[in-house]
Amino acid sequence: MDLIKLRSQNLLMEANNVEITNDVNINLTAFLNKKSYSSIALLCDENTYEHCLPLIIDSLPEHWLIQIESGEENKNIDTCQQIWQAFTEGSFDRNSLLINLGGGVIGDMGGFAASTYKRGIDFINIPTTLLAQVDASVGGKLGIDFMGFKNHIGLFNEPEVIIIDSIFFDTLLPVEVRSGFAEVIKHGLIADQNYWESISDFELKNADWSEIVKQSVEIKKNVVKQDPFESGLRKILNFGHTIGHGIESTYLDHPNGRLLHGEAIAKGMICEAFLSTKKTGLSKHDLDLISNYLLKVFGHEKIDETLFENIIQLIYQDKKNTGKVINSSLLQAIGKCAVNIPIGEPDIIDSLFYYNSLAEHS
Amino acid sequence: MDLIKLRSQNLLMEANNVEITNDVNINLTAFLNKKSYSSIALLCDENTYEHCLPLIIDSLPEHWLIQIESGEENKNIDTCQQIWQAFTEGSFDRNSLLINLGGGVIGDMGGFAASTYKRGIDFINIPTTLLAQVDASVGGKLGIDFMGFKNHIGLFNEPEVIIIDSIFFDTLLPVEVRSGFAEVIKHGLIADQNYWESISDFELKNADWSEIVKQSVEIKKNVVKQDPFESGLRKILNFGHTIGHGIESTYLDHPNGRLLHGEAIAKGMICEAFLSTKKTGLSKHDLDLISNYLLKVFGHEKIDETLFENIIQLIYQDKKNTGKVINSSLLQAIGKCAVNIPIGEPDIIDSLFYYNSLAEHS
Repeated sequence: MDLIKLRSQNLLMEANNVEITNDVNINLTAFLNKKSYSSIALLCDENTYEHCLPLIIDSLPEHWLIQIESGEENKNIDTCQQIWQAFTEGSFDRNSLLINLGGGVIGDMGGFAASTYKRGIDFINIPTTLLAQVDASVGGKLGIDFMGFKNHIGLFNEPEVIIIDSIFFDTLLPVEVRSGFAEVIKHGLIADQNYWESISDFELKNADWSEIVKQSVEIKKNVVKQDPFESGLRKILNFGHTIGHGIESTYLDHPNGRLLHGEAIAKGMICEAFLSTKKTGLSKHDLDLISNYLLKVFGHEKIDETLFENIIQLIYQDKKNTGKVINSSLLQAIGKCAVNIPIGEPDIIDSLFYYNSLAEHS
Repeated sequence: MDLIKLRSQNLLMEANNVEITNDVNINLTAFLNKKSYSSIALLCDENTYEHCLPLIIDSLPEHWLIQIESGEENKNIDTCQQIWQAFTEGSFDRNSLLINLGGGVIGDMGGFAASTYKRGIDFINIPTTLLAQVDASVGGKLGIDFMGFKNHIGLFNEPEVIIIDSIFFDTLLPVEVRSGFAEVIKHGLIADQNYWESISDFELKNADWSEIVKQSVEIKKNVVKQDPFESGLRKILNFGHTIGHGIESTYLDHPNGRLLHGEAIAKGMICEAFLSTKKTGLSKHDLDLISNYLLKVFGHEKIDETLFENIIQLIYQDKKNTGKVINSSLLQAIGKCAVNIPIGEPDIIDSLFYYNSLAEHS
């Protein structure tokens, strides 16, 4: 237990490394001026290469460019090996830096590759999507997918700094912004009723993103500070993700195409809000509020019943579960979440049918 | 800097996890009785499966057996993926345990695989070679080889416990015991003149291994405690390894066959003792003592001159070097080592010629 405490302090100190700015170039330059790296690499994908790199290129000293293919399907050990190979070919020593410019895939995988190259070099994150800014960039979870399981291989480590600027949102499609917004909604639902109320009645396209990102990052930082290694409280961040991840993974290979993370999590949150009324006392009134709002934002696409079995199987392999019990995080009320609530296969099936029934009646 | 301090305390606390015993079964049973793991796997190779597993099998509860092919050439990302795959197929959750039964390859790679599966499960080491007992098992360095570079991908993490029993030495070939003995000699040379004197006049086959292992582990633990992340003092453990690793890696693909780690390190220590007389004041008398003793134990095999260029190249890629400077750890006297001594390509060439000249005159 003492060990855990020390490790927590360590991550806790690092939780102050998030900088929300109106000019990413000022913060990036200030960071680089403080340090003296022997080599610098920048990791991007074809999208951030085209749309985001030009926005910071003038602040970058000489660097190696590592470009990978975008998409969750490339967040795997093969791509990770390409990154290690680039470091090796550039003769990167331990005093090198990796700059991750992109969404969650770039940040998670780049952070993992940097943390394991020569037992760890520095890295910084410049998250370019709403999802990465409010979720993936904070909390030290790094890794890659393996054998179809999301983030199956990874570790906990923190970037030297996370520089957040909403200027990058101009480079995103509206569905991508919406996908990140699912995590914003989640933050309100699990931890802050006022925040939920403030976001639940505005239009996405008119949002004040700096303010939203700031509040969401605050909520997530607060939770992670108190429980960096997910032994208890931090699990509230998994609300919507037990079933949502199962849905997301199932649709990875589906002929109708993949769901964006937030689209899957929105469905997961409806399912788990339904289970919250059965298990943790969420009122029917609040369930309706949550479901209606999520359907309004994310639309009403039914989940194919023939996939239910596959969803169940993937949920049983989730790394958050112990043995054969599925532990979920469920709402007691809007703004209040309980953790380690056991749910069974019939519960999950019921909740998926509930989701589909909403789509039917809408 | 505060961060580093906290991380050090963390590893420092864990440095008390070495148990030297006359009955591995008692310690293993005691450890397992204290814990309650949901799944247990044992990692071994064909040698430890045949010769070592029978010695502990009665103390093992139900477990998954993961057998990999022995040898440094299999300490790579492909084998690591086989281990992750076995965990996945066994539906291992975060409350699982990996038992590493074998030498340095098993301990380093098993520890890395466990530390990155679902962001880390517990592992324990039962090192079965002298080399692993006095060197690899202590100090938290885990990893795999990559693109021809030793331990190129990895991280720092500590096993829950390291159980050391010399009973396993009966399963080793004499050359394997001798290979581990190179690290024992190194411990004397870098940190303890009395220890050096006590080991430098006995016969390997009559050695009191428990006592030797105990003293060597003490020396290594002491060093690692003071500098877990190798920012200074810990580098003394690299004596003989700057040039030794270059030689070892070069011989990996050599038609005359590979060198065992200790055989390469013995050559490296002679080369670096020679450089110590040039750079850090080691006396000619002590150089002769060291060279003669190492040649007596490890024999006199010349290093092929056509490989010198390759050795140099590999040394330049060593993860311990910063930029274009080769930092070595050299002796000031027997029992006293200095770190961060810059050496150049001509120094290395000279030292290799020195080594070969000894072989010629012997």
